[in-house]
Amino acid sequence: MMTIVRLDLVDARVLIAGARAKAEEIGVPMCIAVTDESGHLIALERMDGSKVTGVALAMDKSFTAVGTRKGTHDLGEVSQPGKPAYGLSSALGGRMVVIGGGLPVLVEGEVVGGIGVSSGTPTQDREVAEAGIRALSDSA
Amino acid sequence: MMTIVRLDLVDARVLIAGARAKAEEIGVPMCIAVTDESGHLIALERMDGSKVTGVALAMDKSFTAVGTRKGTHDLGEVSQPGKPAYGLSSALGGRMVVIGGGLPVLVEGEVVGGIGVSSGTPTQDREVAEAGIRALSDSA
Amino acid sequence: MMTIVRLDLVDARVLIAGARAKAEEIGVPMCIAVTDESGHLIALERMDGSKVTGVALAMDKSFTAVGTRKGTHDLGEVSQPGKPAYGLSSALGGRMVVIGGGLPVLVEGEVVGGIGVSSGTPTQDREVAEAGIRALSDSA
Amino acid sequence: MMTIVRLDLVDARVLIAGARAKAEEIGVPMCIAVTDESGHLIALERMDGSKVTGVALAMDKSFTAVGTRKGTHDLGEVSQPGKPAYGLSSALGGRMVVIGGGLPVLVEGEVVGGIGVSSGTPTQDREVAEAGIRALSDSA
Repeated sequence: MMTIVRLDLVDARVLIAGARAKAEEIGVPMCIAVTDESGHLIALERMDGSKVTGVALAMDKSFTAVGTRKGTHDLGEVSQPGKPAYGLSSALGGRMVVIGGGLPVLVEGEVVGGIGVSSGTPTQDREVAEAGIRALSDSA
Repeated sequence: MMTIVRLDLVDARVLIAGARAKAEEIGVPMCIAVTDESGHLIALERMDGSKVTGVALAMDKSFTAVGTRKGTHDLGEVSQPGKPAYGLSSALGGRMVVIGGGLPVLVEGEVVGGIGVSSGTPTQDREVAEAGIRALSDSA
Repeated sequence: MMTIVRLDLVDARVLIAGARAKAEEIGVPMCIAVTDESGHLIALERMDGSKVTGVALAMDKSFTAVGTRKGTHDLGEVSQPGKPAYGLSSALGGRMVVIGGGLPVLVEGEVVGGIGVSSGTPTQDREVAEAGIRALSDSA
Repeated sequence: MMTIVRLDLVDARVLIAGARAKAEEIGVPMCIAVTDESGHLIALERMDGSKVTGVALAMDKSFTAVGTRKGTHDLGEVSQPGKPAYGLSSALGGRMVVIGGGLPVLVEGEVVGGIGVSSGTPTQDREVAEAGIRALSDSA
């Protein structure tokens, strides 16, 4: 048997609250998803005015970040044409997202879950996801 | 009628054991899948600490290698933008993987199955898959 | 944060070996899958001569048992026409299997993974899955 | 390694010709699919005037017959409410078809492929599939 540390619902709410505060600050309503370390959804909020396609993108960004243990913006770089992971974005039926806005949540070097944000530019999505993670760190 | 030669479960275990030994040697836990020549799974092991998204990627790499009779790293080259097989990676619902780590298993020039490895870099995945095939050759 | 106990690869091998021994004893080659508590595959073996459709059925039975925390034979009862869970078998794109042969693996009342078996009759599949769980208990 | 006997394209044409002759005799245009023993399509003919949904149904009937090694009409019986395989029809994303018209093709007790027929009543579909198998036996 092995022992896994995983985000609980309280953690997920902290992540979402931190992300939402940043989204409000920059004036971009966002879809914000938090998954566990296996990629299953724990909580999701679609802010009023955010994009309907952002719901699935936010879930898939978090799933991707958790699975690869990387920020999805990093995957964008290594999957460019000519790079070793070219083609990654269409793997797993297209669930692998290589656009910024997905981040793994780490505790002592282990992935305990992830956050995915979508509806703004990739840079905004990433900034909002980072704010979520900062909120969780600050609450610890 | 035609006659097909196919990996059996004993062969699959040899392939996986050889791949796993190399994964341990390089210190990268891997998901290792072996399929038959029709792309159906024979055996799979997800090493502790390997990536959850690696399970499907390993299966799909082996499926792709068997179907195309090529290493998946070779497909990466011919599917670059501007190349003849551009767009291959999203075919078959994204099951075609053009990232290194999938290899066909050949016996007297015929595909008898495949091995797919995922969780490391594409170069590591390929190295581990090759070690699996070497183990099978050595056992013959 | 919460802490989760999960089958590791060594446990999965014990489950599969126990199931395989029973399959050999009753003379029915089986597909045997072990998933973690989140439904992701840890290990799978398709015994020579078992059914090709058994691969996905074994995986989905384990997924279903883990998700519902019930043996899949129990789900068969509650999903009969007129019963409360009628229609369950087609949920999640058909991944919910309500035919015997899937069992959750419990440690101190918590689901740590599952085993799914397919290729025989539902009664045989269940018997083989139970033998896998017994092997794990005996090894503890 | 194991050795598998599989239908070739000449066999598939004989199966289809036999089925088509029966379909013409009873005046019901049919979709007729032949798969190998792994469930992959070898040949298909959609007779003029047959049903467009019959294409996929014929393929899935043959896939199901090959995977389960049973006629699909037999699966209809064992998957009725209250029977052990209840729920089978929605497994594998609905690819398991429990309506008559799919038959495995056997050579010396081994499945070498399958035939699936759709567009008539289940009884007609089965009758046409049987005519295909008879044609192959007669040609041997």
